[in-house]
Amino acid sequence: MSLVKTFNFQLIPDPTGLLSVYETGKGVDFEIKRVYCLSRLEANSTRGYHAHKALRQVAVCLSGSCRFVLDDGKVRESVVLDSPGVGLQIESFIWREMHDFSDNCVLMVLASELYSESDYIRSYEDFLKEVGNAS
Amino acid sequence: MSLVKTFNFQLIPDPTGLLSVYETGKGVDFEIKRVYCLSRLEANSTRGYHAHKALRQVAVCLSGSCRFVLDDGKVRESVVLDSPGVGLQIESFIWREMHDFSDNCVLMVLASELYSESDYIRSYEDFLKEVGNAS
Repeated sequence: MSLVKTFNFQLIPDPTGLLSVYETGKGVDFEIKRVYCLSRLEANSTRGYHAHKALRQVAVCLSGSCRFVLDDGKVRESVVLDSPGVGLQIESFIWREMHDFSDNCVLMVLASELYSESDYIRSYEDFLKEVGNAS
Repeated sequence: MSLVKTFNFQLIPDPTGLLSVYETGKGVDFEIKRVYCLSRLEANSTRGYHAHKALRQVAVCLSGSCRFVLDDGKVRESVVLDSPGVGLQIESFIWREMHDFSDNCVLMVLASELYSESDYIRSYEDFLKEVGNAS
């Protein structure tokens, strides 16, 4: 089974622009407790490099594009997000990295929980231990 | 009292880019039931031209800039949004228009309720009647 699970959000285009809609029950299967956004991203920068124990997320590229790497400790997969109509589901215990931000990239992440530092796994070695795949 | 109520969201800058955080209890005083975004906006286009009976919203310009016009039927005020760190509170029974979208504008709106067509007031004349200020 692929780690990359994407789904489509409602897009309402008209001649003036594009309206995209995100809500619980329509792709997002959790209550949206927190939203965060990445913008003004430097070329060749990368972000992420962590996993969560409980938090689940949906990532959407609202403008431009970027590449997500998802890793469950056994398999590593990559997907390019480049549409406000596509959501990427990121489950708990998935290591994620974001690469290849385009100039105008704006990335929105919908999250199932409020911030909790103890929910983060910030070292890949610790992540492999947590998922039972440490060498 | 001004119709324009803005507040600051958490911004976490680092050399790779800007992380902005939106959550209930930190500026947003409602549960986030729905998020929508406007992108790919045509130059010289305008949006909005409606009010809501119950829905409350917070608007944030994640990229670029745009100008909001807020109108309570008596007073008409204008504010430019140009930072992912600034939220504009839009109460119920406020007529809103969006103008002057910059090239790269991405506008995010956090909403207190799911979509309901019956909550919309789409004619300015009807709006003035609703707020008791019809001529």
